[in-house]
Amino acid sequence: MVTWGKRNEELILPINSSLSVTLHQDQLKTTTTVASSRSFQEDRIWLNGKEEDITHPRIQSCLREIRRLARKRRNEVDPSLDSTGLSHKVHICSVNNFPTAAGLASSAAGFACLGKSQKNKTRTSNMLSPVCGSGSACRSMYGGFVQWIMGQRDDGKDSLAQQVEPESHWPELRILVLVVSHAERKPVGSTSGMQTSVQTSCLLKHRATSVVPGRMGEMIDAIRRKDFASFAELTMRDSNQFHATCLDTFPPIFYLNSVSQQIISLVHRYNRHCGETRVSYTFDAGPNAVIFSLQQHVPEFLQLVQHVFPPETNGGQGLPVKSTSLPEELKQAIGLEPISKGIRYVISTKAGPGPCVVEDPAQHLLGSDGLPEKTV
Amino acid sequence: MVTWGKRNEELILPINSSLSVTLHQDQLKTTTTVASSRSFQEDRIWLNGKEEDITHPRIQSCLREIRRLARKRRNEVDPSLDSTGLSHKVHICSVNNFPTAAGLASSAAGFACLGKSQKNKTRTSNMLSPVCGSGSACRSMYGGFVQWIMGQRDDGKDSLAQQVEPESHWPELRILVLVVSHAERKPVGSTSGMQTSVQTSCLLKHRATSVVPGRMGEMIDAIRRKDFASFAELTMRDSNQFHATCLDTFPPIFYLNSVSQQIISLVHRYNRHCGETRVSYTFDAGPNAVIFSLQQHVPEFLQLVQHVFPPETNGGQGLPVKSTSLPEELKQAIGLEPISKGIRYVISTKAGPGPCVVEDPAQHLLGSDGLPEKTV
Repeated sequence: MVTWGKRNEELILPINSSLSVTLHQDQLKTTTTVASSRSFQEDRIWLNGKEEDITHPRIQSCLREIRRLARKRRNEVDPSLDSTGLSHKVHICSVNNFPTAAGLASSAAGFACLGKSQKNKTRTSNMLSPVCGSGSACRSMYGGFVQWIMGQRDDGKDSLAQQVEPESHWPELRILVLVVSHAERKPVGSTSGMQTSVQTSCLLKHRATSVVPGRMGEMIDAIRRKDFASFAELTMRDSNQFHATCLDTFPPIFYLNSVSQQIISLVHRYNRHCGETRVSYTFDAGPNAVIFSLQQHVPEFLQLVQHVFPPETNGGQGLPVKSTSLPEELKQAIGLEPISKGIRYVISTKAGPGPCVVEDPAQHLLGSDGLPEKTV
Repeated sequence: MVTWGKRNEELILPINSSLSVTLHQDQLKTTTTVASSRSFQEDRIWLNGKEEDITHPRIQSCLREIRRLARKRRNEVDPSLDSTGLSHKVHICSVNNFPTAAGLASSAAGFACLGKSQKNKTRTSNMLSPVCGSGSACRSMYGGFVQWIMGQRDDGKDSLAQQVEPESHWPELRILVLVVSHAERKPVGSTSGMQTSVQTSCLLKHRATSVVPGRMGEMIDAIRRKDFASFAELTMRDSNQFHATCLDTFPPIFYLNSVSQQIISLVHRYNRHCGETRVSYTFDAGPNAVIFSLQQHVPEFLQLVQHVFPPETNGGQGLPVKSTSLPEELKQAIGLEPISKGIRYVISTKAGPGPCVVEDPAQHLLGSDGLPEKTV
């Protein structure tokens, strides 16, 4: 959810372009209902069934942004629109269909669709996985493969998201999210980390100006041609280089922990054993791995993951995975000692559509009284 | 002991200059005796009292180098020298005054003084700690602060080691080697890792050409002025950037493990708490930390290390350290949970003289029969 390094903090303009895959809502979805009413006494927010402190700075800055956008839209689009709603209090209710404890930057997804808060609305939004440019456009409103073009203008008007290919383009592509156990809270938040990186890392500057532009082109090419080996290698190199610039930040930032390192090692050993690149990884600002592979290779790789990281609870979540038995010879070739409790669970998903408006009133999370439905 | 990246593999010419501190032999010393005799039946080697397999490729390439240098010296310096010794077999005996299991790249130190093998000789040599340029000149023959100038010539004749300041220049400077527990064997050897980095990391090229040259000048300046804060920050930044280029290598190389990351975190928290830079770190191609500090700050920092990494065995080794009690307020400010068995032991040392020839025959490690003395 991070674009690492902004050229303008206020306008949130990135220092380089980036490319992401929108993950499928069947596995990773946030549903959010926003309601505003003259009768509401105060702003309130419920996240995953629990009312949260609305005065939290991050939530407050989201509310400010919602109101700013609403005001802007009214002024630009239709000044005749009723403006009284702008002063109304809002109720926000948001639920994920995946555990929040996963540390999957879920809160950002929940806020991605709050722009139209004048009317009662329910929307779903998605997780994204960065594949190039060390970051992802959390404001992207598209499904499939999406690039966030950095733009050149100071006012940011040419900094925009664009769909490279729709989610139907590469149906064999699979995405596994390996949720690492005991992932502590991020030691350094991404906002302040990003600022420190821009200020202190000379490798980040070099990466942004001299490496990413070329890679973006290669990556888009690889996706268009559905060339998995090229896509996979670019993804891994780009993830590693992003984490290298975190380490070159002063003081250094570590997002990869020892389990992340083991996952990286496993992927390289597996590919070497297979004599071709069947699996790749990317890591955002945290220790959880996002794995790319093709449908036919997922069962064996998942078995291998379960061999090296024997699961705490039985089974994962998401797309059903056909079970295969792992050849003894493969275990030997990989040569990694099993580490118990390294990975909490695996979410198996694929590229999916962008955010959707939920038209069915029965799916709204807030009742007519403005309070969460009992089922939430 | 590594210079990361060679511009010429055969001549071992580095892609950037580097700066090291020679560590004191009182704490970290390798003593090596080499004897050659017509009566020896075969080449043999004893390391720390145990005979090793002389056919090991690394030892063989050392022997070849010894003989090449001996031949070269004879040809260049005095062709009239008796050349029969060149075909004699050699016995080599080497002992460290510190545990080899420490993973302190001790073998390289043991071979640093084998050049003059025509005559029976005993020499001592040192460990070095890199402070700039992500490597150290293992061939450096000087004490104190030594730079290895990369040179420009293809034949390497301008690639040489030079003393920047002698070991007496900065007597308050202290060096702690934190030997990390359970340090597995290097996952990637430094020779092959280095080659892969040069081939695959674009950040390494940028670092070598655009970052290190400026840093070398700043570092030499800081050392001359005995400006600890500048010296310390440059050391940390350079170590981090070296490990960043390892991560940017494909496949990536990890030398820092979770204990190394905790040590880095501890140093930054301590400096922040103190409001000044009192301690710095540097990491070579492995997880062990080399810590720089000034004499007056060592006791408190060591206490802190022992608080965060409660020792397995009692006490360290090396220069005696005055005990101080750690204020509760400091522990609170650092806020790191103690991790038992993170650090095996601490070697406390300082800058020292270069390699020495041991003149006293009683100190030779090989007896008149060419076999190790009983005391070895």
